[in-house]
Amino acid sequence: MLKEIDLINSPAELRNSFRNNELTRPTSGLAPGFVQANLAILPRKNAFDFLLFCQRNPKPCPLIEVLEPGEIEAKLTAPGSDVRNDVPLYRVYKNGVLEEEIKSLENIWEKDFVTFMLGCSFSFEAALQNNGIRLPHFEKGTNVSMYITNIETASAGEFSGPMVVSMRSIPQEKVVRAVQVTSRFPSVHGSPIHVGSPEAIGISDISKPDFGDSTEINEGEVPVFWACGVTPQSVAMSSKPEIMITHAPGYMFITDKKDEEYSVL
Amino acid sequence: MLKEIDLINSPAELRNSFRNNELTRPTSGLAPGFVQANLAILPRKNAFDFLLFCQRNPKPCPLIEVLEPGEIEAKLTAPGSDVRNDVPLYRVYKNGVLEEEIKSLENIWEKDFVTFMLGCSFSFEAALQNNGIRLPHFEKGTNVSMYITNIETASAGEFSGPMVVSMRSIPQEKVVRAVQVTSRFPSVHGSPIHVGSPEAIGISDISKPDFGDSTEINEGEVPVFWACGVTPQSVAMSSKPEIMITHAPGYMFITDKKDEEYSVL
Repeated sequence: MLKEIDLINSPAELRNSFRNNELTRPTSGLAPGFVQANLAILPRKNAFDFLLFCQRNPKPCPLIEVLEPGEIEAKLTAPGSDVRNDVPLYRVYKNGVLEEEIKSLENIWEKDFVTFMLGCSFSFEAALQNNGIRLPHFEKGTNVSMYITNIETASAGEFSGPMVVSMRSIPQEKVVRAVQVTSRFPSVHGSPIHVGSPEAIGISDISKPDFGDSTEINEGEVPVFWACGVTPQSVAMSSKPEIMITHAPGYMFITDKKDEEYSVL
Repeated sequence: MLKEIDLINSPAELRNSFRNNELTRPTSGLAPGFVQANLAILPRKNAFDFLLFCQRNPKPCPLIEVLEPGEIEAKLTAPGSDVRNDVPLYRVYKNGVLEEEIKSLENIWEKDFVTFMLGCSFSFEAALQNNGIRLPHFEKGTNVSMYITNIETASAGEFSGPMVVSMRSIPQEKVVRAVQVTSRFPSVHGSPIHVGSPEAIGISDISKPDFGDSTEINEGEVPVFWACGVTPQSVAMSSKPEIMITHAPGYMFITDKKDEEYSVL
């Protein structure tokens, strides 16, 4: 339940509420203006390849911070945080299969776990809305539409697979502005990877997303596609690491960094 | 000796000349418009920490490509290349000490060597000149002035140390344009890290650079400082890895990518 008090709380206060289980809810709409991050935690033995995968695929995998093996504090983007507890809900995958959803990692934490924090589209969606580009899924409280494309990512070690994209339906007169606005944020997916024809990137039925809810495309609107943070998770899953921990969809890690700190111009 | 034919040769032709030892010269001025890269090669056991260091310090350490352990071809930025031979001159450091300069790594190559290619300032210097900002060190054929600052990098594992910057003296009416132009290239050091007072970043005597040649600052000019690709090498050296291989200063790896492909807007 969205309370006004939640919106104005600081990232540190919100992380604290999640840590103490005073609050368990999706983080959309919380701490507006602050960067929220996708989370992926892997053992040290998988970490170099995953880091390399992110380096090679910065649009779907924009790294915000990577912690030292075993480290639990995101020192650069959220001093005082505890990545084992500060996400409201976690998912634990073993050999690529979802095992459980839990609120704390303390009981399963290993000293060689490496935490990856990746930028999320909330940042550039706020920028789009500030520029008068309405996003119906934001207003309706539904999920953005996501699709598996025929665009191959650049593989790294055992990690490879197709890119997942999110789609927003943009009035044609605002497409150029949408490209400009999101280009300013390369650390949170950046510019679109495709404008227009879904078929051109291997999407046969735009009304049936692979993840999330379907989006209505109205007369005079153009589907615009951005690289999606689901890509690294889906790629990592398909390589079936012994263990991988992520945030539960929509339950992100809230950092102390402002969206604008990640703009390039 | 600069021959006109060198300038118009393609990156692949130039790499081939270096590989066959038909040509051994600094790469400044060659293949204009194409991205040239700093090179750092480390054993697999140091590679995760070094990759993490680069991720945490993207301004001094802008990664262009990182190869799989043992891989010799830069598949993404220079298909068909051989990083063991395609740089005109290499430096081999052991335990932080320069051991030798050689033209090929074939005799010392190990199957766990990881090659890092980092963006270099040639790309944004071309952009500055295209915008009417003259760079005397380019015209005189001298080296840019470089300084060790009091700005600490974000450490990673055993890698830590101060940031090295390069300085260009910019007419005060062109400082804003210099910031704008270089901001477009975050993958090749990007925007300046400091404008004006050298003392503010720990440089006590601007006339005595720590590396490179000194630069005259004329009436009406402002010293502008950019993060420098010497930083990762100097940081890696001070951690004294068993072996580290780099390009010799000025003898870079020429990729097939155009500078403009790395601009964000």
